[in-house]
Amino acid sequence: MITRAEYDQAVQSALDLFQKAHIAVTPEEAAAIEVADFGLSNLREIGLQLLVYINTPRVCAKEMALLPHQTCPEHRHPDIGKELGKEETFRCRWGVCHLFVYDPDCKEKSGLEPASRAEYFTACKKITLLPGEQYTMYPNTLHWFTAGDEGAVISEFSTMSRDEYDIFTDPDIARATVVSD
Amino acid sequence: MITRAEYDQAVQSALDLFQKAHIAVTPEEAAAIEVADFGLSNLREIGLQLLVYINTPRVCAKEMALLPHQTCPEHRHPDIGKELGKEETFRCRWGVCHLFVYDPDCKEKSGLEPASRAEYFTACKKITLLPGEQYTMYPNTLHWFTAGDEGAVISEFSTMSRDEYDIFTDPDIARATVVSD
Repeated sequence: MITRAEYDQAVQSALDLFQKAHIAVTPEEAAAIEVADFGLSNLREIGLQLLVYINTPRVCAKEMALLPHQTCPEHRHPDIGKELGKEETFRCRWGVCHLFVYDPDCKEKSGLEPASRAEYFTACKKITLLPGEQYTMYPNTLHWFTAGDEGAVISEFSTMSRDEYDIFTDPDIARATVVSD
Repeated sequence: MITRAEYDQAVQSALDLFQKAHIAVTPEEAAAIEVADFGLSNLREIGLQLLVYINTPRVCAKEMALLPHQTCPEHRHPDIGKELGKEETFRCRWGVCHLFVYDPDCKEKSGLEPASRAEYFTACKKITLLPGEQYTMYPNTLHWFTAGDEGAVISEFSTMSRDEYDIFTDPDIARATVVSD
Protein backbone atom coordinates (compact mmCIF):
# COMPACT_ATOMS: atom_id res chain seq x y z
CA MET A 1 0.00 0.00 0.00
CA ILE A 2 1.17 3.51 -0.79
CA THR A 3 -0.33 6.87 -0.06
CA ARG A 4 -1.83 9.13 -2.69
CA ALA A 5 1.04 11.56 -2.06
CA GLU A 6 3.62 8.81 -2.70
CA TYR A 7 1.77 7.80 -5.86
CA ASP A 8 1.63 11.36 -7.18
CA GLN A 9 5.30 11.94 -6.35
CA ALA A 10 6.27 8.78 -8.24
CA VAL A 11 4.26 9.91 -11.27
CA GLN A 12 6.08 13.25 -11.19
CA SER A 13 9.45 11.49 -10.92
CA ALA A 14 8.56 9.37 -13.97
CA LEU A 15 7.62 12.51 -15.91
CA ASP A 16 10.95 14.07 -14.91
CA LEU A 17 12.79 10.99 -16.19
CA PHE A 18 10.85 11.02 -19.47
CA GLN A 19 11.79 14.68 -19.87
CA LYS A 20 15.47 13.88 -19.29
CA ALA A 21 15.13 11.17 -21.95
CA HIS A 22 13.41 13.67 -24.30
CA ILE A 23 10.38 11.40 -24.55
CA ALA A 24 7.26 13.38 -25.44
CA VAL A 25 4.04 12.37 -23.69
CA THR A 26 0.58 13.85 -24.04
CA PRO A 27 -1.29 15.29 -21.03
CA GLU A 28 -3.67 12.30 -21.21
CA GLU A 29 -0.71 9.92 -21.04
CA ALA A 30 0.85 11.83 -18.14
CA ALA A 31 -2.40 11.36 -16.24
CA ALA A 32 -2.42 7.63 -17.00
CA ILE A 33 1.06 6.74 -15.70
CA GLU A 34 0.89 3.66 -13.49
CA VAL A 35 2.81 3.25 -10.27
CA ALA A 36 3.43 -0.30 -9.02
CA ASP A 37 4.59 -1.09 -5.49
CA PHE A 38 3.95 -4.82 -6.00
CA GLY A 39 2.08 -4.86 -2.69
CA LEU A 40 5.30 -4.55 -0.67
CA SER A 41 4.66 -0.96 0.51
CA ASN A 42 8.26 -0.02 -0.16
CA LEU A 43 7.94 1.77 -3.48
CA ARG A 44 11.25 3.60 -3.39
CA GLU A 45 13.15 0.32 -3.11
CA ILE A 46 10.90 -2.11 -5.01
CA GLY A 47 8.65 -0.47 -7.55
CA LEU A 48 8.15 0.65 -11.11
CA GLN A 49 6.47 3.48 -13.04
CA LEU A 50 4.86 2.60 -16.37
CA LEU A 51 3.33 4.36 -19.33
CA VAL A 52 1.53 1.87 -21.57
CA TYR A 53 1.38 3.16 -25.14
CA ILE A 54 -0.59 0.28 -26.64
CA ASN A 55 -1.74 -3.13 -25.41
CA THR A 56 -3.85 -5.23 -27.77
CA PRO A 57 -4.21 -9.02 -28.02
CA ARG A 58 -1.20 -8.98 -30.38
CA VAL A 59 1.12 -6.10 -29.52
CA CYS A 60 2.19 -4.14 -26.46
CA ALA A 61 4.57 -1.22 -26.10
CA LYS A 62 5.32 0.81 -23.02
CA GLU A 63 7.85 3.11 -21.43
CA MET A 64 9.16 2.18 -17.99
CA ALA A 65 10.78 4.63 -15.57
CA LEU A 66 12.92 3.53 -12.65
CA LEU A 67 14.12 5.88 -9.94
CA PRO A 68 17.79 5.62 -8.91
CA HIS A 69 18.37 2.04 -7.68
CA GLN A 70 14.64 1.28 -7.75
CA THR A 71 14.07 -2.37 -8.63
CA CYS A 72 11.39 -4.32 -10.46
CA PRO A 73 11.13 -7.65 -8.64
CA GLU A 74 11.91 -11.05 -10.12
CA HIS A 75 9.21 -12.67 -12.20
CA ARG A 76 8.48 -14.65 -15.35
CA HIS A 77 5.74 -14.71 -17.98
CA PRO A 78 4.37 -18.26 -18.26
CA ASP A 79 2.46 -19.82 -21.12
CA ILE A 80 -1.28 -19.42 -20.61
CA GLY A 81 -3.14 -22.52 -21.75
CA LYS A 82 -2.04 -23.13 -25.33
CA GLU A 83 -0.76 -19.57 -25.75
CA LEU A 84 2.91 -18.80 -25.47
CA GLY A 85 3.86 -16.49 -22.60
CA LYS A 86 4.91 -12.91 -23.08
CA GLU A 87 7.98 -12.16 -25.18
CA GLU A 88 9.61 -8.81 -24.43
CA THR A 89 12.49 -6.67 -25.56
CA PHE A 90 13.91 -4.07 -23.17
CA ARG A 91 15.64 -1.11 -24.80
CA CYS A 92 17.43 1.37 -22.56
CA ARG A 93 16.62 4.94 -23.60
CA TRP A 94 18.26 6.90 -20.81
CA GLY A 95 20.33 6.15 -17.69
CA VAL A 96 21.56 2.68 -16.85
CA CYS A 97 19.54 -0.51 -16.45
CA HIS A 98 20.98 -3.64 -14.88
CA LEU A 99 18.91 -6.60 -16.05
CA PHE A 100 19.31 -10.02 -14.45
CA VAL A 101 18.14 -13.20 -16.16
CA TYR A 102 18.21 -16.81 -15.04
CA ASP A 103 21.28 -18.78 -16.06
CA PRO A 104 21.89 -22.20 -14.49
CA ASP A 105 25.66 -21.57 -14.60
CA CYS A 106 25.44 -18.34 -12.65
CA LYS A 107 25.60 -18.82 -8.91
CA GLU A 108 27.02 -15.58 -7.59
CA LYS A 109 24.73 -12.73 -6.68
CA SER A 110 25.64 -9.19 -7.69
CA GLY A 111 24.85 -7.42 -4.45
CA LEU A 112 22.33 -5.22 -6.28
CA GLU A 113 19.39 -7.17 -4.86
CA PRO A 114 17.13 -5.06 -2.59
CA ALA A 115 18.36 -5.83 0.91
CA SER A 116 14.93 -6.26 2.45
CA ARG A 117 13.92 -9.11 0.11
CA ALA A 118 17.25 -10.33 -1.29
CA GLU A 119 16.36 -14.00 -0.96
CA TYR A 120 13.68 -13.60 -3.65
CA PHE A 121 16.15 -12.38 -6.27
CA THR A 122 17.72 -15.54 -7.70
CA ALA A 123 18.45 -14.77 -11.39
CA CYS A 124 22.05 -13.57 -11.49
CA LYS A 125 23.24 -13.33 -15.09
CA LYS A 126 23.80 -9.57 -15.34
CA ILE A 127 23.18 -7.63 -18.53
CA THR A 128 23.91 -3.93 -18.23
CA LEU A 129 21.99 -1.84 -20.75
CA LEU A 130 23.20 1.64 -21.63
CA PRO A 131 21.17 4.00 -23.87
CA GLY A 132 20.66 2.35 -27.27
CA GLU A 133 21.29 -1.15 -25.95
CA GLN A 134 18.61 -3.79 -25.69
CA TYR A 135 17.90 -7.40 -24.73
CA THR A 136 15.11 -9.80 -25.67
CA MET A 137 13.52 -12.23 -23.22
CA TYR A 138 11.47 -15.16 -24.42
CA PRO A 139 8.55 -16.63 -22.43
CA ASN A 140 9.23 -18.08 -19.01
CA THR A 141 12.60 -16.34 -18.57
CA LEU A 142 13.02 -15.51 -14.89
CA HIS A 143 14.23 -11.89 -14.67
CA TRP A 144 14.42 -8.70 -12.62
CA PHE A 145 15.95 -5.30 -13.23
CA THR A 146 17.22 -2.25 -11.40
CA ALA A 147 18.42 1.24 -12.28
CA GLY A 148 21.81 2.86 -11.84
CA ASP A 149 22.65 6.00 -9.88
CA GLU A 150 20.44 8.36 -11.92
CA GLY A 151 17.52 6.07 -12.68
CA ALA A 152 16.58 4.67 -16.07
CA VAL A 153 14.04 4.92 -18.85
CA ILE A 154 13.43 1.65 -20.69
CA SER A 155 11.19 0.98 -23.67
CA GLU A 156 9.48 -2.40 -23.72
CA PHE A 157 8.29 -3.96 -26.99
CA SER A 158 6.28 -7.13 -26.40
CA THR A 159 3.33 -9.37 -27.02
CA MET A 160 0.20 -8.60 -24.98
CA SER A 161 0.78 -7.68 -21.33
CA ARG A 162 -1.38 -9.64 -18.95
CA ASP A 163 0.20 -8.73 -15.64
CA GLU A 164 -2.25 -10.88 -13.67
CA TYR A 165 -0.57 -14.02 -15.02
CA ASP A 166 2.98 -12.99 -14.05
CA ILE A 167 4.63 -15.36 -11.59
CA PHE A 168 6.75 -13.59 -8.97
CA THR A 169 9.44 -15.30 -6.90
CA ASP A 170 8.53 -13.34 -3.77
CA PRO A 171 5.37 -14.91 -2.28
CA ASP A 172 4.33 -11.64 -0.65
CA ILE A 173 3.97 -9.79 -3.93
CA ALA A 174 0.58 -8.69 -5.19
CA ARG A 175 0.68 -7.10 -8.65
CA ALA A 176 -2.12 -4.60 -8.02
CA THR A 177 -1.15 -1.44 -6.16
CA VAL A 178 -3.45 -0.29 -3.38
CA VAL A 179 -3.53 3.46 -2.78
CA SER A 180 -4.67 4.75 0.62
CA ASP A 181 -6.40 8.09 0.86
CA MET B 1 17.71 2.28 -58.03
CA ILE B 2 19.84 4.65 -55.99
CA THR B 3 23.57 5.19 -55.89
CA ARG B 4 25.77 4.19 -52.99
CA ALA B 5 26.36 7.90 -52.32
CA GLU B 6 22.59 8.56 -52.12
CA TYR B 7 22.20 5.57 -49.81
CA ASP B 8 24.98 6.72 -47.51
CA GLN B 9 23.65 10.27 -47.47
CA ALA B 10 20.18 9.01 -46.50
CA VAL B 11 21.66 6.95 -43.67
CA GLN B 12 23.46 10.03 -42.39
CA SER B 13 20.26 12.09 -42.62
CA ALA B 14 18.46 9.41 -40.57
CA LEU B 15 21.21 9.51 -37.94
CA ASP B 16 20.90 13.31 -37.81
CA LEU B 17 17.15 13.00 -37.25
CA PHE B 18 17.64 10.38 -34.52
CA GLN B 19 20.08 12.74 -32.85
CA LYS B 20 17.57 15.59 -32.99
CA ALA B 21 15.03 13.22 -31.40
CA HIS B 22 17.62 12.23 -28.74
CA ILE B 23 17.31 8.58 -29.73
CA ALA B 24 20.46 6.67 -28.83
CA VAL B 25 21.64 4.06 -31.33
CA THR B 26 24.65 1.78 -31.15
CA PRO B 27 27.37 1.84 -33.85
CA GLU B 28 26.13 -1.58 -35.03
CA GLU B 29 22.61 -0.19 -35.40
CA ALA B 30 23.86 2.89 -37.25
CA ALA B 31 25.55 0.57 -39.73
CA ALA B 32 22.33 -1.43 -40.18
CA ILE B 33 19.98 1.44 -41.07
CA GLU B 34 17.91 0.54 -44.13
CA VAL B 35 17.09 2.94 -46.93
CA ALA B 36 14.05 2.18 -49.09
CA ASP B 37 13.40 3.87 -52.42
CA PHE B 38 10.56 1.44 -53.23
CA GLY B 39 12.09 0.91 -56.65
CA LEU B 40 11.00 4.35 -57.87
CA SER B 41 14.51 5.86 -57.97
CA ASN B 42 13.26 9.06 -56.43
CA LEU B 43 14.33 8.61 -52.82
CA ARG B 44 14.10 12.23 -51.77
CA GLU B 45 10.41 12.36 -52.72
CA ILE B 46 9.27 8.77 -52.08
CA GLY B 47 11.38 6.89 -49.61
CA LEU B 48 11.96 5.89 -46.01
CA GLN B 49 14.84 5.22 -43.63
CA LEU B 50 14.39 2.44 -41.07
CA LEU B 51 16.15 1.07 -38.04
CA VAL B 52 14.66 -2.28 -37.02
CA TYR B 53 15.19 -2.91 -33.32
CA ILE B 54 13.59 -6.33 -33.16
CA ASN B 55 11.60 -8.51 -35.56
CA THR B 56 10.59 -11.97 -34.37
CA PRO B 57 7.59 -14.12 -35.38
CA ARG B 58 5.62 -12.35 -32.63
CA VAL B 59 6.90 -8.80 -32.15
CA CYS B 60 8.49 -6.06 -34.21
CA ALA B 61 9.70 -2.60 -33.22
CA LYS B 62 11.52 -0.08 -35.34
CA GLU B 63 12.36 3.59 -35.65
CA MET B 64 11.48 5.31 -38.93
CA ALA B 65 13.07 8.54 -40.15
CA LEU B 66 11.51 10.70 -42.86
CA LEU B 67 13.30 13.64 -44.45
CA PRO B 68 11.30 16.88 -44.86
CA HIS B 69 8.25 16.06 -47.01
CA GLN B 70 9.60 12.61 -47.83
CA THR B 71 6.73 10.14 -48.24
CA CYS B 72 6.23 6.44 -47.60
CA PRO B 73 3.93 5.24 -50.39
CA GLU B 74 0.43 3.83 -49.92
CA HIS B 75 0.19 0.18 -48.94
CA ARG B 76 -1.61 -2.32 -46.75
CA HIS B 77 -0.65 -5.43 -44.80
CA PRO B 78 -2.92 -8.30 -45.87
CA ASP B 79 -3.68 -11.50 -44.01
CA ILE B 80 -1.27 -14.26 -45.03
CA GLY B 81 -3.03 -17.62 -45.24
CA LYS B 82 -4.77 -18.08 -41.90
CA GLU B 83 -2.59 -15.50 -40.18
CA LEU B 84 -3.84 -12.00 -39.55
CA GLY B 85 -1.94 -9.27 -41.35
CA LYS B 86 0.37 -6.86 -39.61
CA GLU B 87 -1.01 -4.61 -36.88
CA GLU B 88 1.03 -1.47 -36.26
CA THR B 89 1.06 1.57 -34.02
CA PHE B 90 2.87 4.70 -35.21
CA ARG B 91 4.10 7.02 -32.47
CA CYS B 92 5.59 10.35 -33.46
CA ARG B 93 8.80 11.02 -31.53
CA TRP B 94 10.02 14.16 -33.26
CA GLY B 95 8.86 16.49 -36.03
CA VAL B 96 5.47 16.16 -37.68
CA CYS B 97 3.98 13.11 -39.39
CA HIS B 98 0.90 13.32 -41.58
CA LEU B 99 -0.65 9.86 -41.77
CA PHE B 100 -3.41 9.09 -44.26
CA VAL B 101 -5.72 6.10 -43.85
CA TYR B 102 -8.54 4.82 -46.00
CA ASP B 103 -11.98 6.11 -45.12
CA PRO B 104 -14.88 5.50 -47.53
CA ASP B 105 -16.37 8.87 -46.56
CA CYS B 106 -13.26 10.82 -47.42
CA LYS B 107 -13.08 11.89 -51.06
CA GLU B 108 -10.94 14.99 -51.04
CA LYS B 109 -7.20 14.71 -51.39
CA SER B 110 -4.92 16.81 -49.19
CA GLY B 111 -2.47 17.97 -51.81
CA LEU B 112 0.37 16.38 -49.85
CA GLU B 113 0.58 13.47 -52.31
CA PRO B 114 3.93 13.30 -54.17
CA ALA B 115 3.26 15.05 -57.46
CA SER B 116 5.00 12.48 -59.64
CA ARG B 117 2.77 9.59 -58.53
CA ALA B 118 -0.26 11.34 -57.01
CA GLU B 119 -2.76 8.98 -58.61
CA TYR B 120 -1.48 6.11 -56.44
CA PHE B 121 -2.25 7.91 -53.17
CA THR B 122 -5.95 7.29 -52.53
CA ALA B 123 -6.35 7.12 -48.73
CA CYS B 124 -7.29 10.61 -47.64
CA LYS B 125 -8.35 10.60 -43.99
CA LYS B 126 -5.59 12.73 -42.49
CA ILE B 127 -4.21 12.13 -39.02
CA THR B 128 -1.49 14.56 -38.02
CA LEU B 129 0.81 13.18 -35.36
CA LEU B 130 2.90 15.53 -33.24
CA PRO B 131 5.54 14.26 -30.78
CA GLY B 132 3.87 12.01 -28.20
CA GLU B 133 0.86 11.31 -30.40
CA GLN B 134 0.15 7.93 -31.93
CA TYR B 135 -2.28 5.97 -34.08
CA THR B 136 -2.94 2.23 -34.43
CA MET B 137 -3.68 0.55 -37.76
CA TYR B 138 -5.23 -2.88 -37.90
CA PRO B 139 -4.55 -5.38 -40.74
CA ASN B 140 -5.50 -4.42 -44.26
CA THR B 141 -5.78 -0.70 -43.55
CA LEU B 142 -4.67 1.19 -46.65
CA HIS B 143 -2.28 3.95 -45.51
CA TRP B 144 0.62 6.23 -46.41
CA PHE B 145 2.49 8.90 -44.52
CA THR B 146 4.66 11.94 -45.05
CA ALA B 147 6.75 14.29 -42.94
CA GLY B 148 6.37 17.99 -42.25
CA ASP B 149 8.87 20.77 -42.95
CA GLU B 150 11.64 19.41 -40.71
CA GLY B 151 11.16 15.68 -41.22
CA ALA B 152 9.91 13.20 -38.65
CA VAL B 153 10.98 10.36 -36.43
CA ILE B 154 8.30 7.75 -35.84
CA SER B 155 8.41 4.64 -33.66
CA GLU B 156 6.51 1.65 -34.95
CA PHE B 157 5.29 -1.09 -32.59
CA SER B 158 3.84 -4.05 -34.48
CA THR B 159 3.46 -7.73 -35.11
CA MET B 160 6.12 -9.33 -37.32
CA SER B 161 7.20 -7.29 -40.34
CA ARG B 162 7.16 -9.27 -43.57
CA ASP B 163 7.64 -6.50 -46.10
CA GLU B 164 7.53 -8.91 -49.03
CA TYR B 165 3.79 -9.41 -48.44
CA ASP B 166 2.92 -5.70 -48.41
CA ILE B 167 0.52 -4.67 -51.15
CA PHE B 168 1.28 -1.27 -52.69
CA THR B 169 -1.19 0.80 -54.67
CA ASP B 170 1.47 1.93 -57.16
CA PRO B 171 2.11 -0.96 -59.59
CA ASP B 172 5.66 0.22 -60.28
CA ILE B 173 6.80 -0.22 -56.69
CA ALA B 174 9.30 -2.90 -55.75
CA ARG B 175 9.96 -3.16 -52.02
CA ALA B 176 13.63 -4.12 -52.32
CA THR B 177 16.06 -1.25 -52.90
CA VAL B 178 18.73 -1.76 -55.56
CA VAL B 179 21.97 0.12 -54.98
CA SER B 180 24.23 0.85 -57.94
CA ASP B 181 27.97 1.07 -57.43
